Amino acid sequence: MVSQMRREIGEQPEALQRTLDALLPQREEVRRLAEGRGRVLFVARGSSDNAAIYGRYLLEAWAGVNAGLAAPSIATHYRTRLDLSDALVVAVSQSGRTAEIVESQAWARECGATTVAVTNDGDSPLATGADLALVTQAGPEIAVPATKSYLGQLAAMAVVGTALAPEPTALDAELARSPEVVARLVDTPVPDAALELLDAAEDLVVSGRGLMLGTALETALKLEETCLQPVRGYSYADLRHGPISVVDTDVVALLLAAPDGPMTGPMTELADDLRGRGARVVGLGGDPAFAAAVDVAVPGPDLSEPLAPLGAIVPSQLLVEAFARRLGLDPDNPRGLSKVTQTDPDSGPQG
Amino acid sequence: MVSQMRREIGEQPEALQRTLDALLPQREEVRRLAEGRGRVLFVARGSSDNAAIYGRYLLEAWAGVNAGLAAPSIATHYRTRLDLSDALVVAVSQSGRTAEIVESQAWARECGATTVAVTNDGDSPLATGADLALVTQAGPEIAVPATKSYLGQLAAMAVVGTALAPEPTALDAELARSPEVVARLVDTPVPDAALELLDAAEDLVVSGRGLMLGTALETALKLEETCLQPVRGYSYADLRHGPISVVDTDVVALLLAAPDGPMTGPMTELADDLRGRGARVVGLGGDPAFAAAVDVAVPGPDLSEPLAPLGAIVPSQLLVEAFARRLGLDPDNPRGLSKVTQTDPDSGPQG
Repeated sequence: MVSQMRREIGEQPEALQRTLDALLPQREEVRRLAEGRGRVLFVARGSSDNAAIYGRYLLEAWAGVNAGLAAPSIATHYRTRLDLSDALVVAVSQSGRTAEIVESQAWARECGATTVAVTNDGDSPLATGADLALVTQAGPEIAVPATKSYLGQLAAMAVVGTALAPEPTALDAELARSPEVVARLVDTPVPDAALELLDAAEDLVVSGRGLMLGTALETALKLEETCLQPVRGYSYADLRHGPISVVDTDVVALLLAAPDGPMTGPMTELADDLRGRGARVVGLGGDPAFAAAVDVAVPGPDLSEPLAPLGAIVPSQLLVEAFARRLGLDPDNPRGLSKVTQTDPDSGPQG
Repeated sequence: MVSQMRREIGEQPEALQRTLDALLPQREEVRRLAEGRGRVLFVARGSSDNAAIYGRYLLEAWAGVNAGLAAPSIATHYRTRLDLSDALVVAVSQSGRTAEIVESQAWARECGATTVAVTNDGDSPLATGADLALVTQAGPEIAVPATKSYLGQLAAMAVVGTALAPEPTALDAELARSPEVVARLVDTPVPDAALELLDAAEDLVVSGRGLMLGTALETALKLEETCLQPVRGYSYADLRHGPISVVDTDVVALLLAAPDGPMTGPMTELADDLRGRGARVVGLGGDPAFAAAVDVAVPGPDLSEPLAPLGAIVPSQLLVEAFARRLGLDPDNPRGLSKVTQTDPDSGPQG
């Protein structure tokens, strides 16, 4: 029997196409809302936060626009008034109903920000409370692990990132073929050897860097919530600054890399280093040198680094789904999770 | 035999006093460098990054000043030029010689930022390359795990945070008694029961929130590099959004809380929730309700939330040092770490 998660992974080429068709024409409005403002601030939690990390790097590394991640608790718990008159705030929530994100967006407007909501539900309070809603077209998502709605968020990040770039259309040709790249990856089975390595891990570490960092953290999160494995997701730098000392033969590392760009070389060196310490390495994506440096290579997307996350998430999802089944778990409904996540379980002080 | 790390933990009351004496008079210069600039950006890695997280929350939550963390790879690998003419950049490195931090600071100046270096070495390239150097007075640190130099960084964060606040002297009375609070904590042994619980953990999780998040992440990092334990450090929110589903009876959670402020209540609820899932909880700091909600309470500082991290790090250090010895490890020299950490092992593209 095919899991609902697997079905939804398969629906992504169409979901991505619909989302790009809907959102690309909104770039002019995004640009207008950012006019005269020096920076973009993302507000998000969980998977949406990982999409926002991609958005942040796309803006800073590729588009040359200041960007950062807001701390929602400043709005919801400390209730400090900041001067956000120089900021465009992009709030990201699949459901559009995560209380602290809705509240943080309202706070940002009061602080002088213009606001863009990225959500899969155009009727949600996040969408209706924003200056502009970028409504992703993933359709209803039934499996608890976000797949097509996450890819929709990545597409929305690409829309925001390109909207604010000096040359907004520079990635358009590649964006146009991204649904086809996703379709090909959906049909590429994950190597059994990768699942065997993950299964043999006593200690599982996931890492990526720069534009691929969000994909690495999202993969770690999904391995935790869908496969119920204790996984540590690290940026390349955080892994190097300390935790790498714990790496030994018990460790299996899953490294994610883009097929080009300035991070693929360092990720290849990291693979060498980890294997030198006795760890085994599954590598997702990268270039031929990266694939040659790892124990098991999982093919990634044929998309340049700024858009590689839109493709790389697909083999990551397939890996998670297949690994959950291998462990005898139901990927559609990992225990203890609901589809609308609240950071604070009671309505609490932040309402 | 007393470890060098334990000796250096004990030197902190004097180190903190010296650092405050040296840096508090520099607040006026910090203010001048921030004049007309709308935000503060921290550049740091590893432990220094955890100090910067405290600085960020102190500025945003307490002082009402926009703050965030820069991504050093934007400077070192993507080499993008951002417009930082609205930013004061605070670069933090104990040695002042971590190549990517030195390089990121130089990049920030080229991008129009004013710069403040926080380092324990006034002759380092980070100090000499900045508009202003806040030189912490920790003295030479011999043990590999940063203790007194980290506390010096926290003091520097308090200096920057108060310098830019509407009422810069509002915390001065409490700052003045912080060395005495640290001295008391240095002499408070960690309960054996806390070490026993950590030792019994199959899976160790550390969490904190808001102003205490940096302390939680620093504690997780030190447990990893000094005790060589695979530890997952989470913000409260990140733990709630997914990973909490993996929590069961194998888990021991170390939660850190301030004695007051809006986060102590939610941290107490988190302790209840984790124990409800079968985890056992060591609680560091907090108020009496928090201490009552955990399995083992480790006393924290008598300092209000904005300054609580300056005290809370001491029992955290004592816990790490004692736990390393209990595991038969040498806390002074965990394997594989050197005192000057480079993100990229060869000189590489970032020089």
